[in-house]
Amino acid sequence: MKNHVYKILEIVGSSQTSIEDAISTAVELAGKTVRNMDWFEVIETRGHIKDGKIAHYQVALKIGFTLEAQ
Amino acid sequence: MKNHVYKILEIVGSSQTSIEDAISTAVELAGKTVRNMDWFEVIETRGHIKDGKIAHYQVALKIGFTLEAQ
Amino acid sequence: MKNHVYKILEIVGSSQTSIEDAISTAVELAGKTVRNMDWFEVIETRGHIKDGKIAHYQVALKIGFTLEAQ
Amino acid sequence: MKNHVYKILEIVGSSQTSIEDAISTAVELAGKTVRNMDWFEVIETRGHIKDGKIAHYQVALKIGFTLEAQ
Amino acid sequence: MKNHVYKILEIVGSSQTSIEDAISTAVELAGKTVRNMDWFEVIETRGHIKDGKIAHYQVALKIGFTLEAQ
Amino acid sequence: MKNHVYKILEIVGSSQTSIEDAISTAVELAGKTVRNMDWFEVIETRGHIKDGKIAHYQVALKIGFTLEAQ
Amino acid sequence: MKNHVYKILEIVGSSQTSIEDAISTAVELAGKTVRNMDWFEVIETRGHIKDGKIAHYQVALKIGFTLEAQ
Amino acid sequence: MKNHVYKILEIVGSSQTSIEDAISTAVELAGKTVRNMDWFEVIETRGHIKDGKIAHYQVALKIGFTLEAQ
Amino acid sequence: MKNHVYKILEIVGSSQTSIEDAISTAVELAGKTVRNMDWFEVIETRGHIKDGKIAHYQVALKIGFTLEAQ
Amino acid sequence: MKNHVYKILEIVGSSQTSIEDAISTAVELAGKTVRNMDWFEVIETRGHIKDGKIAHYQVALKIGFTLEAQ
Amino acid sequence: MKNHVYKILEIVGSSQTSIEDAISTAVELAGKTVRNMDWFEVIETRGHIKDGKIAHYQVALKIGFTLEAQ
Amino acid sequence: MKNHVYKILEIVGSSQTSIEDAISTAVELAGKTVRNMDWFEVIETRGHIKDGKIAHYQVALKIGFTLEAQ
Repeated sequence: MKNHVYKILEIVGSSQTSIEDAISTAVELAGKTVRNMDWFEVIETRGHIKDGKIAHYQVALKIGFTLEAQ
Repeated sequence: MKNHVYKILEIVGSSQTSIEDAISTAVELAGKTVRNMDWFEVIETRGHIKDGKIAHYQVALKIGFTLEAQ
Repeated sequence: MKNHVYKILEIVGSSQTSIEDAISTAVELAGKTVRNMDWFEVIETRGHIKDGKIAHYQVALKIGFTLEAQ
Repeated sequence: MKNHVYKILEIVGSSQTSIEDAISTAVELAGKTVRNMDWFEVIETRGHIKDGKIAHYQVALKIGFTLEAQ
Repeated sequence: MKNHVYKILEIVGSSQTSIEDAISTAVELAGKTVRNMDWFEVIETRGHIKDGKIAHYQVALKIGFTLEAQ
Repeated sequence: MKNHVYKILEIVGSSQTSIEDAISTAVELAGKTVRNMDWFEVIETRGHIKDGKIAHYQVALKIGFTLEAQ
Repeated sequence: MKNHVYKILEIVGSSQTSIEDAISTAVELAGKTVRNMDWFEVIETRGHIKDGKIAHYQVALKIGFTLEAQ
Repeated sequence: MKNHVYKILEIVGSSQTSIEDAISTAVELAGKTVRNMDWFEVIETRGHIKDGKIAHYQVALKIGFTLEAQ
Repeated sequence: MKNHVYKILEIVGSSQTSIEDAISTAVELAGKTVRNMDWFEVIETRGHIKDGKIAHYQVALKIGFTLEAQ
Repeated sequence: MKNHVYKILEIVGSSQTSIEDAISTAVELAGKTVRNMDWFEVIETRGHIKDGKIAHYQVALKIGFTLEAQ
Repeated sequence: MKNHVYKILEIVGSSQTSIEDAISTAVELAGKTVRNMDWFEVIETRGHIKDGKIAHYQVALKIGFTLEAQ
Repeated sequence: MKNHVYKILEIVGSSQTSIEDAISTAVELAGKTVRNMDWFEVIETRGHIKDGKIAHYQVALKIGFTLEAQ
């Protein structure tokens, strides 16, 4: 097995519908600039409230991706 | 921009269906006693188990609301 | 089962005799302003020292109580 | 009231669909070896990413169950 | 010495000029609804950025005040 | 000196009288299924409130015991 | 409202004069490489001492900025 | 009011009888080498188990004492 | 992909030579009672000192292993 | 480069004017008993309130200083 | 002294032989894309187990490097 | 068994070769000023990087030693 190196980026996704959708939103947009994403970890779940109701969820993630030797 | 002051209350909502519903339940009941709720943060996700299945989720939140000068 | 909502208050009790007595002092005084207290959690145990001896214990608690719909 | 004793086990469930389903998966499999499960607490929410999309959620739980005197 | 009980409230003050001023803003507005404030503890220091510069500081505090027997 | 290995179990004891008694209750019941218990560490002190008074203390412990080679 | 995604960078600013100035130094230099900075959070406040006096403050920040779709 | 400076020492007391007694043991022995002790904070509660019973409690404290100008 | 469930055990290994050897000692002894061990995480590194030198390292691990359906 | 060893002391400074001044007060008084102070880290920012206004800031620091071989 | 600004990246290195080697692997690969690396901090030590033995160590680091003005 | 009291000092050792050597360096130098050292706990592992390689490891320890009655 090779000695892999992963780089970690931290990103916050938001969604009006669910925590899972906020995670997907973040992962998909991150995928536009980094390749080889491997895992994520939720580090904070927050959200905004408007007129007494949840306006959107905001989920902060760490995303690990394989760093390619250059 | 004015210098806002937010007060934070801590509240636990529960739901038999989902984490998002437990959050909504807490936000809606909090809205009966405080106005101008602005944001929430999840600080703990727990639940009870009955007969080997999840009976309900319990989600502890901090809710921030704008404090009106009096 | 109904979807309960608990509100959490944070309070510090003190006692010259024991940690348990400091907890009781806090719970009893909290009971003068809130009803339906359900559980507590110790979040910090401190105290003051005077003339080289413990003058009193100070125990910080979170207390959860059922929020009645209004 | 008797003086109950709870034992805590730590378990990680996974699901391709939602955080709640990952929790259920863990609770149900745990129920095959322990009885009298009473509560759970989420301690970590992670997951894997494949081809730029979430492959599955992984949720680490503590599960408390009543320890029967033997 | 009597057995004091302190209640803790959590509040976020903001200021365009300094961290100390954000703390003062929070303490002064809190003082309009509670008496006998005794101490504070900073639990989070954040802020907003606008046009590449700090727009304001936001400092979250716990404030302890003596609870009067009722 | 041999290279010892300790296994850790997590357990919650409860008592109507004191924190120390809740710890003893947990240690004694744990002793019915594991041998060679060596140390404990308190990880959480909670309790329930009934009719405005403390009904019982709940103390969560980690208990370390020597793992015997098999 | 759109589903925003924020990326977070971590940066340490230093200043010989104040904590606020160390934060500004970090925010301004970060602004040379990222656009649309939105908020910051202080995660550590340190500093160096020389000849018995504070030589400079070092403040570690997380800075969140809106990630533009590409 | 003068600008006080407190120094903090960390110490672990033990007792065969109670958590409070372990705290006292630590405070009293600390008092043999430092003067002007002002407060303590419990940072860890552990203990040893022997023959299936609690042998002694070990409580780690921070103790703050006024530093006298020299 | 199937929905895996991992169970986590907590164990402390010791060694007179190195941190890595203490980890190995724990993993190998754990392997005598559980199968399908998959990952570990170091949660604490401690040790004992004797005659002014390190007598042995003690490393606490969480070990995750695949739980087989029964 | 030699293998340096730093010792860490923990100290709380106070000031009626600012957080930076409380840090300076602590560093300067610490400098009366230890030499070769190298760095500090803020571990807690608190203060007292009197008559509804901030009476003074209290900042707890760790201070690292080079330990001279003896 | 100039007011330096450090940027922090988070990276995970792995090695089949030791924790130190996993750290080196991460630092060396990071050095292919950033210059002026100054310090690192270990934030997590994990690893994988295969056939009852440690397959490799995974060490997560923060690496700080001087940000050059642009 | 007597009621022991341990005092804790915090110290940072460094080494160009390994984490274990950095721990030894700290323990040995500490042993020049305190007697009866009993245990240590690693609280932080850091290091410096020079020319893209690890220059030295820095390991922060708590060291506990038996306090002799005076």
